Amino acid sequence: MHKRFTIPTTGPGLYEMTPALLAWVNNHDLAEGLLTLFIRHTSASLVIQENADPDVQVDLRAYFDRLVPPSSDPSMRYLTHTYEGPDDMPAHIKAALLPTHLQIPVIQGRLMLGTWQGIYIFEHRTKAQQREVVALLR
Amino acid sequence: MHKRFTIPTTGPGLYEMTPALLAWVNNHDLAEGLLTLFIRHTSASLVIQENADPDVQVDLRAYFDRLVPPSSDPSMRYLTHTYEGPDDMPAHIKAALLPTHLQIPVIQGRLMLGTWQGIYIFEHRTKAQQREVVALLR
Amino acid sequence: MHKRFTIPTTGPGLYEMTPALLAWVNNHDLAEGLLTLFIRHTSASLVIQENADPDVQVDLRAYFDRLVPPSSDPSMRYLTHTYEGPDDMPAHIKAALLPTHLQIPVIQGRLMLGTWQGIYIFEHRTKAQQREVVALLR
Repeated sequence: MHKRFTIPTTGPGLYEMTPALLAWVNNHDLAEGLLTLFIRHTSASLVIQENADPDVQVDLRAYFDRLVPPSSDPSMRYLTHTYEGPDDMPAHIKAALLPTHLQIPVIQGRLMLGTWQGIYIFEHRTKAQQREVVALLR
Repeated sequence: MHKRFTIPTTGPGLYEMTPALLAWVNNHDLAEGLLTLFIRHTSASLVIQENADPDVQVDLRAYFDRLVPPSSDPSMRYLTHTYEGPDDMPAHIKAALLPTHLQIPVIQGRLMLGTWQGIYIFEHRTKAQQREVVALLR
Repeated sequence: MHKRFTIPTTGPGLYEMTPALLAWVNNHDLAEGLLTLFIRHTSASLVIQENADPDVQVDLRAYFDRLVPPSSDPSMRYLTHTYEGPDDMPAHIKAALLPTHLQIPVIQGRLMLGTWQGIYIFEHRTKAQQREVVALLR
């Protein structure tokens, strides 16, 4: 079975999807299977990260903003794809560095996330977006 | 079903596989399933990236060449695995940073790529290579 | 079928899992399928890397330690999640940059790894850990 999730984002950072996904997976009570998540965009990512201390999410964003500065930054002057704004090409680079899809085993109806693992959309663009994630359970 | 694709590469950069993969997937008319792509090498990657403006591909290569300079670069003097050439260990590092496999849901016979998403081999080695990609559709 | 592997680690670096996984996969003699590996942690990763020259593993660790220095490093002063030690937030960042899960096709009972590919846990924490990896074969 599959389901399309549409998630509004309002600027760079992590947006948690775990509760919505758990609700959907638990509903199917699958003895054994695999959850696939696929984000249909090249300027946002899917990540599994610590869901306890929200500072981790702040630090993750801060790190990736330094690893891939805006194309207006002097260090990024070599970039050529700049006409969609200073956050656009860096968003594509972050989307190469971070996952476009995630896979998580399901065993006895339960998504096998570890105790501290949550599932997030990592938005890389500045403007508000509607992000589509396809979930497949098999 | 599965298929092995052999793709010749002629130096660093992105090589598009989307049309060949679409042709193969469309041919099977699968109601619901998952396409897995796996590259059998540790010095080349598989990426999903924007397929509209070819400048994005140029910029991606430029970024990763700066993030992981050749082992002949003074900043990389700490590397020890250098006897296969200055592009070899950086190729392994890029192959750790970028995906070895991709998964894309198939729904009603259609690969669920977003409008701007294309599938590429990202070659990291300088010399010409033959790259093998295993595609699995289930 | 699935299996849980528990792997002890004793500090940062790569720990090979290939022989244990080959033994388990070969035992099932699957005509065609997919092996999924999922690590239930946010401070360790799973990577496919060259398994010939052990220097590659040393260099990989050296590279990632430079790309993501400890939070005690002056360049990382902006990090806020530091109370679990100087290796903790960098471990989460590395866990975002490197895979949490791997997928490898199985064809005629054989895991489709390339000649030089091995499967590793990449431990990012300093203290000894017990890491749990869920393997799913379908």
